[in-house]
Amino acid sequence: MPASSDQALLLYADSAHNADMRYFSGLHVPDPFIALAVGGRKIGLFNALEFGRALKESTLDDVLALEPFREQAKERWPDSTPGVADIVLLAAEKYLVDRFVVPEDFPAGLFEKLRRRGLTLEVATGSILPEREFKSASEARAIREGNRIAAAGIAAAEKVLAKSAIKGGKLLHRGEVLTSERLKFAIETACLEAGGVSLDTIAAGGDQACDPHNRGSGPLRPNELIIVDVFPRSQTTGYHGDMTRTFLRGRASEAQRALVDAVRTAQKAALKLIRDGVNGRDVHKACVDVFTKRGYETKATPTGSVGFFHGTGHGLGLAVHELPRLSGAVDYTLKTGAVATVEPGLYYPGLGGCRIEDVVQVTATRPRLLSSAPYDWELG
Amino acid sequence: MPASSDQALLLYADSAHNADMRYFSGLHVPDPFIALAVGGRKIGLFNALEFGRALKESTLDDVLALEPFREQAKERWPDSTPGVADIVLLAAEKYLVDRFVVPEDFPAGLFEKLRRRGLTLEVATGSILPEREFKSASEARAIREGNRIAAAGIAAAEKVLAKSAIKGGKLLHRGEVLTSERLKFAIETACLEAGGVSLDTIAAGGDQACDPHNRGSGPLRPNELIIVDVFPRSQTTGYHGDMTRTFLRGRASEAQRALVDAVRTAQKAALKLIRDGVNGRDVHKACVDVFTKRGYETKATPTGSVGFFHGTGHGLGLAVHELPRLSGAVDYTLKTGAVATVEPGLYYPGLGGCRIEDVVQVTATRPRLLSSAPYDWELG
Repeated sequence: MPASSDQALLLYADSAHNADMRYFSGLHVPDPFIALAVGGRKIGLFNALEFGRALKESTLDDVLALEPFREQAKERWPDSTPGVADIVLLAAEKYLVDRFVVPEDFPAGLFEKLRRRGLTLEVATGSILPEREFKSASEARAIREGNRIAAAGIAAAEKVLAKSAIKGGKLLHRGEVLTSERLKFAIETACLEAGGVSLDTIAAGGDQACDPHNRGSGPLRPNELIIVDVFPRSQTTGYHGDMTRTFLRGRASEAQRALVDAVRTAQKAALKLIRDGVNGRDVHKACVDVFTKRGYETKATPTGSVGFFHGTGHGLGLAVHELPRLSGAVDYTLKTGAVATVEPGLYYPGLGGCRIEDVVQVTATRPRLLSSAPYDWELG
Repeated sequence: MPASSDQALLLYADSAHNADMRYFSGLHVPDPFIALAVGGRKIGLFNALEFGRALKESTLDDVLALEPFREQAKERWPDSTPGVADIVLLAAEKYLVDRFVVPEDFPAGLFEKLRRRGLTLEVATGSILPEREFKSASEARAIREGNRIAAAGIAAAEKVLAKSAIKGGKLLHRGEVLTSERLKFAIETACLEAGGVSLDTIAAGGDQACDPHNRGSGPLRPNELIIVDVFPRSQTTGYHGDMTRTFLRGRASEAQRALVDAVRTAQKAALKLIRDGVNGRDVHKACVDVFTKRGYETKATPTGSVGFFHGTGHGLGLAVHELPRLSGAVDYTLKTGAVATVEPGLYYPGLGGCRIEDVVQVTATRPRLLSSAPYDWELG
């Protein structure tokens, strides 16, 4: 049951990691806090550490201090130290509510306590804030800005790779062996400079890149495919970019060229299909079809899968992974305003891995590209 | 009821944000996954994207591929797309378990689904992994390393401030107005270089610093107190450092000197008290007493609190905020092996804010200092 405006909502999370809470409050708070929506009003309760800032910066209608609730709880229940459940019960009383919808990721411990003490709680099916999926013009701008930051990171990586010297089986950068760690440092510094934080940056070469979430470590080598995947968060807006390019310093083999060409062709096939009303599963299938036609097999092996074994894309916004989904595993209708990555990839240990990723916003016709960076990859 | 080893545990979280999951699996995974502890064995289920890496890098006893469970779910329940609850039920069947303890932050949506389908779930009271509070020698080393990274950030800030020129009411760095943003960039770059990521860095001056979670923005000024709070995560270990220093470029007033001296004196009083068996509330009270004796009042005002209105410290490890607690709001006994910050502060708009923070490990006698940086603050 998706939440509607006549149902009271209850949230308890920090807004540094929880995108619903960030969207709801408009405020970045590193510790969990209580928020309610009652009769269309958005309410937040803050301790002394956050109260002043919440008053100034949040988009909530009512910013309440936690302290008076804590005092009230001490009077009401003098035998125990006031806890989060006590405060929620008092806030519910204040707003005359005894029934809340909570998000799927609401903490089970608090859920149980509140139910035992008489509140009726119902877990929302799907998003508690379904409007988060459809981005306004200013949100789309924030994501474009996130991708500008990502592109700054990708450009820094390309520059380091292009300038590196090939010596024996190694790449040298400023006289030292070029490692994944050094490349990530160049990327992350460039992102910081551009106004974002890039966590979990991937700069992985050779067989390491065939594990798509292996972030890469140790020396990078000439003539091998190097996947660079950067998904920074803008320090100003909290929205993300997400971009992947695959590079090779040296000379590519015919097999490597064919692999990269297949991935880029699959991406173009997906981009051509995306529009309002299309099923994400069909977009994924368009990529699979390109790969199958060119003879790239996907299968599980005892040490991991090979081929194309992840989804084609995912929604992007305040979270790096959100709705919609473009995957072979689910039906999901893409609708105008949704923003998603398009990132097919192929991975074969021995040959290497390739992934190319851009971000688009769904429209009634051709998708609007929210990322921009060159596709040159062979840095000879 | 704390979890004991004869109870089966169930976790569902990503391990990039969830410290329990990171501790349990030894693996950094950005998306939620299923993990169980049954009969002392630690088990994790991974999709194709993580399976290969989990095999190589996790500390789990059994690394299982998700795909066969998904296939089995499709056969068993052909009318619906397999979801997380289906997979958990099949895994529980495989391990002959129908009763699990889950952590307090287990997602309520999954909790409800599993209960409705016949699993007995009990929410743990307190930590599901209480051993996380007590750090081994190698964990203490990792936290010391986190603080070495933090100290690199603090040193970078001090250097920029010390080198800045005073011109009118402003500070100039390399000919440009020195802002909180520029100072944070210097800190975060230094942390990256030292091997960590510093998120939500605080570099706030004047009245901004009186909101302890205001990260600071705009020009920094001479002769005002500037709070620099850095809590980076080591990219290698996932453990954090957490360190605060307060600086002033120019000449401090007597009132500013008295404020800084009171905070440092309070910190020393707290450090003197910390040892195995002491109540965190008493450590906090030692700081409060120093402030009260010197005439620093704590009170709430309509625009926020003034004085000393946050806890004296918090546990530090894979999470920035964890157990133990050193706070006036709760009793909490400190025990050997626990690691905590010690960070009293005073905040008065008009005069400014000061916080000084170090990290210690509790022992039977004097606490072991796990952070190290100079306390010089007046950069004349």
